[in-house]
Amino acid sequence: MKKSIFYHAGCPVCVSAEQDILELVGTDNVEIVHFGESKSRIAEAEKAGVKSVPALVTPNGNVLHINYGASMADVKA
Amino acid sequence: MKKSIFYHAGCPVCVSAEQDILELVGTDNVEIVHFGESKSRIAEAEKAGVKSVPALVTPNGNVLHINYGASMADVKA
Repeated sequence: MKKSIFYHAGCPVCVSAEQDILELVGTDNVEIVHFGESKSRIAEAEKAGVKSVPALVTPNGNVLHINYGASMADVKA
Repeated sequence: MKKSIFYHAGCPVCVSAEQDILELVGTDNVEIVHFGESKSRIAEAEKAGVKSVPALVTPNGNVLHINYGASMADVKA
């Protein structure tokens, strides 16, 4: 199975959601991207349709925005 | 593993998220509750902390609000 990608920005909401997603989907099936550590991947996430974090991009390209941590504008600030 | 519960209200956003969640988490690991068919379970969902649908309540009781279909107020209307 192609991996999902979980984008987050280290906020408390994000970290909590990350734990849940990893547990539900399985650690091996998700790539975790932390924008604080990987600023260069913000553009990729926006291109995929990510509007806020945390968000999970599924293997078929759908974007699931989970709870609400921060907007992409906040992430870039 | 205890099942997660996916609450939704049949809106297009909900149905799309349902497909994604079932694929990611596995059909056997999720109970699907459609408020249109199970009005009686709205109170249970609210008690669990569901504020909008679609939402996934994880086995450990966390609520993941996914995208945004409708508020619980809309669901009850």
